[in-house]
Amino acid sequence: MTESRYFVVTDHPKGVPDEALFELRTDSLPELASGQLKLKNLWLSVDPYMRNRMDGVKTYIDPFELNAPMEGAAIGEVVESSDERFKAGDKVRHMAGWRDHAVVDANHVEPLPSYDVPLQAYLGVLGMPGMTAWTGLNTIAGLTGEDTVLVSAASGAVGSLAVQLAVQKGCTVVGTAGSKEKCQWLESLGVHAVNHHQSAEDIAADIKRAAPQGIDVYFENVGGPMLDAALASMNDFGRIAVCGMISRYNDGEQPGPANIAMMLTKRLRVQGFIVLEHWEGYSDFIKEVGPLVQKGAIEYQESVFEGLEATPKAFLSLFESGAHNGKRLVKLAP
Amino acid sequence: MTESRYFVVTDHPKGVPDEALFELRTDSLPELASGQLKLKNLWLSVDPYMRNRMDGVKTYIDPFELNAPMEGAAIGEVVESSDERFKAGDKVRHMAGWRDHAVVDANHVEPLPSYDVPLQAYLGVLGMPGMTAWTGLNTIAGLTGEDTVLVSAASGAVGSLAVQLAVQKGCTVVGTAGSKEKCQWLESLGVHAVNHHQSAEDIAADIKRAAPQGIDVYFENVGGPMLDAALASMNDFGRIAVCGMISRYNDGEQPGPANIAMMLTKRLRVQGFIVLEHWEGYSDFIKEVGPLVQKGAIEYQESVFEGLEATPKAFLSLFESGAHNGKRLVKLAP
Repeated sequence: MTESRYFVVTDHPKGVPDEALFELRTDSLPELASGQLKLKNLWLSVDPYMRNRMDGVKTYIDPFELNAPMEGAAIGEVVESSDERFKAGDKVRHMAGWRDHAVVDANHVEPLPSYDVPLQAYLGVLGMPGMTAWTGLNTIAGLTGEDTVLVSAASGAVGSLAVQLAVQKGCTVVGTAGSKEKCQWLESLGVHAVNHHQSAEDIAADIKRAAPQGIDVYFENVGGPMLDAALASMNDFGRIAVCGMISRYNDGEQPGPANIAMMLTKRLRVQGFIVLEHWEGYSDFIKEVGPLVQKGAIEYQESVFEGLEATPKAFLSLFESGAHNGKRLVKLAP
Repeated sequence: MTESRYFVVTDHPKGVPDEALFELRTDSLPELASGQLKLKNLWLSVDPYMRNRMDGVKTYIDPFELNAPMEGAAIGEVVESSDERFKAGDKVRHMAGWRDHAVVDANHVEPLPSYDVPLQAYLGVLGMPGMTAWTGLNTIAGLTGEDTVLVSAASGAVGSLAVQLAVQKGCTVVGTAGSKEKCQWLESLGVHAVNHHQSAEDIAADIKRAAPQGIDVYFENVGGPMLDAALASMNDFGRIAVCGMISRYNDGEQPGPANIAMMLTKRLRVQGFIVLEHWEGYSDFIKEVGPLVQKGAIEYQESVFEGLEATPKAFLSLFESGAHNGKRLVKLAP
């Protein structure tokens, strides 16, 4: 009988969660029913959207149930299969993360594409964050090579693919980040880097220096003063893909952009999206981006935390500035 | 030689303009060049968007030039024509308002449609305000009969047509207004009326009582706490047509909606629009709405001010609550 060690949240946090919110528990896994798989996880993903699931409120996704195994993207290896499509040793992507072993329905599991890339790339640049960047630019904002593009949190797991896809399309690209090192990395990718830890006015002034022609497409990851600065920088008929507002996730009430009337005066189109609702585009995405990653034409950063116990720390690092970069991953013992 | 009496603005106002900002001047009109018309105005329109033109800043439209004749929609009668398409006595709609006589290029003039309606209807319910309501609902928000619709400033020139068009389409419609009398009128039109002079929380609670199923399409005329309340009331995948934010026009900086992250969590699509950029739809609009107005199936309210001198007062009444209703018009001596 296999045991599963898994994390639960024990309460609904206010503000930035404390590590004590997360508890590691152990349960025995059930025997496989027909059509199920027993998985041993190799890599776990932690992502900003998970913060919203801790509020106990249904938004676009069910909240985490208190004291029940948490969920999240993971790469696992099949150790036992009662479904003819999978056999022991297969590597799959699935949502039973935040734990070491799981029994899952085979219909809820994706076989991994066969590019010659590290396994964990399918949780990052070729997984949900990468697909999010691609969907926001293409499906939501209708990006063309003529556009000048602004991406906030551009050194992050989503942003860094967004800026590189836009650069590859021939766009002028401005990316914002919170440290000198991150900005230097962005510059090395052909991006005009702007520090977003400034007042809205100063961010906007830096954007204007980087792209005096103004911004046609804004990929929004941040919210707060960054959104004020972006609205001020938009050209008429600009499009804003709202992917995240990480600056707001841990705050209760804070004012929205004082210049929101620019949505009208500039005739902007602003659209929020959740990548899971656009997953039918994944095969187009992977055909375009998989080969680029395989041949090293796309750079991506990872911060790898070791061992299941480190999962809460990996997650909380998403809300700290500076210490960690890029896609946060947890590597489980092989 | 005909004289023209016209209004100018003498400065860029801060906040709500003072009547002293407007000066009435007189000049001789030039002789007609080929392709021009001399017009005697019968009706002038004053509209909220004109406030933006007083700031001296180019937005979607050029600012009013200080000390030059102001502009605005008007109905005029041709008194002299050097263009074969028009003859003396023709009634036309044009943009040389805020004055009694004008010389205009015949290419900038529209003949009036031939419905049996009062002339001034072509400045209101069958003019720019009506076309704005129709465009916001249909072209921008993609209204269907299944939608639950919220319209702010619903007793106004734009809003009152928006709610009636949505009711005629079979939608459940919630409309907000600032007084008991306006709310009563809305109820008489088959609209669930909500007072928008309340806190965002109270507006949202009233909307929820009126439409527990939530809002699919919001027609935004107001901004401020009303927008917070609307965001809180939207269903997933709702569409917001941003037509105006009159509460913000006379304010410098005020915070935007604290719940702006709902654009993401609810995957909203928010789009600002300016009706002049969608004028190609006017023939579809007038074919649909002209007959409805002619047969009395659409109600509309007018506040008529008498005489050119009253034009600033008519305009300023747009920013006062309660005293005047519906479309503000200036009737010139026949």
